Amino acid sequence: MVDIAARVWNHKWKIDPIVRSLIDTDFYKLLMCQSIFRNRPDTTVTFSLINRSHSVRLADLIDEGELREQLDHVRSLSLTRGESTWLRGNTFYGKRQMFRSDFMEWFEGMRLPAYHLEKRDGQYELTFEGSWPEVMLWEIPALSVLMELRSRAVLQKQGRFELQVLYARAMTKLWEKIALLREIDGLKIADFGTRRRHSFLWQDWAVQAMQEGLEGKFTGTSNCLIAMRREMEAIGTNAHELPMVYAALANSDAELAQAPYQVLADWQEEHDGNLRVILPDTFGTAGFLKNAPDWLASWTGMRIDSGDPATAAELAIQWWKERGEDPKQKLVIFSDGLDVEKIVELHNQFRGRVKVSFGWGTMLTNDFRGLAPDDGLAPFSVVCKAIAANGRPTVKLSDNPSKAMGPADQIERYKRVFGVGDQVAQPLVV
Amino acid sequence: MVDIAARVWNHKWKIDPIVRSLIDTDFYKLLMCQSIFRNRPDTTVTFSLINRSHSVRLADLIDEGELREQLDHVRSLSLTRGESTWLRGNTFYGKRQMFRSDFMEWFEGMRLPAYHLEKRDGQYELTFEGSWPEVMLWEIPALSVLMELRSRAVLQKQGRFELQVLYARAMTKLWEKIALLREIDGLKIADFGTRRRHSFLWQDWAVQAMQEGLEGKFTGTSNCLIAMRREMEAIGTNAHELPMVYAALANSDAELAQAPYQVLADWQEEHDGNLRVILPDTFGTAGFLKNAPDWLASWTGMRIDSGDPATAAELAIQWWKERGEDPKQKLVIFSDGLDVEKIVELHNQFRGRVKVSFGWGTMLTNDFRGLAPDDGLAPFSVVCKAIAANGRPTVKLSDNPSKAMGPADQIERYKRVFGVGDQVAQPLVV
Repeated sequence: MVDIAARVWNHKWKIDPIVRSLIDTDFYKLLMCQSIFRNRPDTTVTFSLINRSHSVRLADLIDEGELREQLDHVRSLSLTRGESTWLRGNTFYGKRQMFRSDFMEWFEGMRLPAYHLEKRDGQYELTFEGSWPEVMLWEIPALSVLMELRSRAVLQKQGRFELQVLYARAMTKLWEKIALLREIDGLKIADFGTRRRHSFLWQDWAVQAMQEGLEGKFTGTSNCLIAMRREMEAIGTNAHELPMVYAALANSDAELAQAPYQVLADWQEEHDGNLRVILPDTFGTAGFLKNAPDWLASWTGMRIDSGDPATAAELAIQWWKERGEDPKQKLVIFSDGLDVEKIVELHNQFRGRVKVSFGWGTMLTNDFRGLAPDDGLAPFSVVCKAIAANGRPTVKLSDNPSKAMGPADQIERYKRVFGVGDQVAQPLVV
Repeated sequence: MVDIAARVWNHKWKIDPIVRSLIDTDFYKLLMCQSIFRNRPDTTVTFSLINRSHSVRLADLIDEGELREQLDHVRSLSLTRGESTWLRGNTFYGKRQMFRSDFMEWFEGMRLPAYHLEKRDGQYELTFEGSWPEVMLWEIPALSVLMELRSRAVLQKQGRFELQVLYARAMTKLWEKIALLREIDGLKIADFGTRRRHSFLWQDWAVQAMQEGLEGKFTGTSNCLIAMRREMEAIGTNAHELPMVYAALANSDAELAQAPYQVLADWQEEHDGNLRVILPDTFGTAGFLKNAPDWLASWTGMRIDSGDPATAAELAIQWWKERGEDPKQKLVIFSDGLDVEKIVELHNQFRGRVKVSFGWGTMLTNDFRGLAPDDGLAPFSVVCKAIAANGRPTVKLSDNPSKAMGPADQIERYKRVFGVGDQVAQPLVV
């Protein structure tokens, strides 16, 4: 039987929207948004899309009109009643009413601000400027739109069965990874792959496959919409955006040096337990730990997001020991450049020494390597970052010089202030 | 949107029927049925299911109640108006009105006769007895029902995503075969896989994938229902059943020796062109060709269905030359135990020397080897054959002694009458 009404309803769509909900975003964006809304609501920021994979010429692949339609559609979205109810009523990390009423009222009325789009040298220049709590919510939908438009462009020429086999191969590939992960005793792993997913439907499939295949070893997804629909845990804490903007707002080198700690001081006023996770690498992990105030050592864990992960985790363990803490009680979340082999290796190296956990991103939700001609669906490294705050440029150093960003003179200044010496470059896969 | 009506309609089914149409069968069954209806309508035959793969204990795997429900459902089927219209109005092998009016009137009123089912030693004894043109139509649905009930039994315990990945793997496997076949210049290949398919839906998928992947190299399917729905050519000519029953009805050794040629004499009264295809191996190819009447040499081609296919094809080429025919103008159809490697090998060996064509069966529609625990979905060798005609046992020798059937004394008699000497046994995969 043909569902005529459904067919006719589908005909009414002018586009097939990529982002259909404001909570089709990472959970940590909402936590950070509330923190910003409370602590720094009047900051003006500029976010910009940065495609670190120059060989992927997005402006040649993606039609500008289609891109504008998708971005315009995202701007038309507002929080639905059910989404609002879920955010207000759900238990996150064991806590009820994670989101305060004043924040929720603001969020219910929020629409994403205007974007600025230009083509240059085969790439799109896509920027967002305005109030920090609003602009920062563009990050994930902007990335999702670009990633999925690129997938659609590459897939456009394929036949019906060719397409089905392409997805069959992708499913098989992911399932084989899940079969390997299932064998790991005591594994804890979550989906962190929203930002660079192949498509929404594919992320949704991947997350459900993880749930069936890994059962209790799969701890949840960073994607709020999928967490809501699939009744899973929403996972995430905070990101580089906070120290980057706090640092840019600093009025002196002394204030700059304190900025990363100020972020966490603000954070711990609101959050405890598993939400007290340090992200130490924004301006170099070693210096961050060395100069950290003592109260930080009592936090629950650390997220390792750049550089060599084993080196950073050893650094963390050493630091906890020096500060009189028991590393066995601490959580280490690995979230950078993971695939199964790396996960197995890190798990074996650190199990029993710390509580190990993984936030698996691109290789969970976008491992289409080898599945299209000229590897046209291989994931690539695109980010959407705060590049300025109140007119001042932001800087990120991280533990991998390939991920550094900001004006050269400011990078030098930050390196000096944070005592960053030589760094080892890691290849950027995604 | 949920299509409520469709859901409620589905609830009304007591079972999920495996065979939903009387033309979900091989095209050659209908051609042969018409020939029998015209030439030997009063013959009484017994057909019996024979599972040559003793290790697959069907009666342990398949519930007897479910089997009876499925077989009863097949007995409830009659030709629909659309199916009748297609058979009457379609062009088969370039010919209109392939099926005569008297046959179609009989077929429209036909219901499949009763079956007899018993369990013995972990196997089902399933037999059909009655009028030849009716009983012979049980062959394909009986096999389809058993094959698919076995697939369902094995798949019953799998999770939702596990199942999806299983089919993803099967699709990938088949698509890789198609990719290899696509490279073969001048390939002609058809689906002959109805009888031992994994399931109806899977055969339908496989046929459509072949159509998209091979385009003109894919010449059609032996399955009438799929041919009708997908607007493809229905492919097939005749089978061992005719000489086996004609031979059993012979009243002397002299009549027996002539029986295989009598079949073809009857056949050529009705059919010409690409339907004049000799199946020479029922009682040994060498003897059949040696003693064949001269008029047979003018037939269009030969189907190679047992023994070593290259040997049999060389024999055919030699025979055509001896009878003054140009092998280049002759069609050789390989249809036994084919998979891609064998297809490539035979195509390379015979292209340019004859017109080569392939009827690809089980490894097209049921290659689930390695996809379930304990290889529980690997295809197995089950047939449904005429074992008696008018109270006399039938015999098949073929060019592979592993495929011989019939009482030992009759096998000896047939070997003597048809001058069959030593034969080389070929392993029976499916």
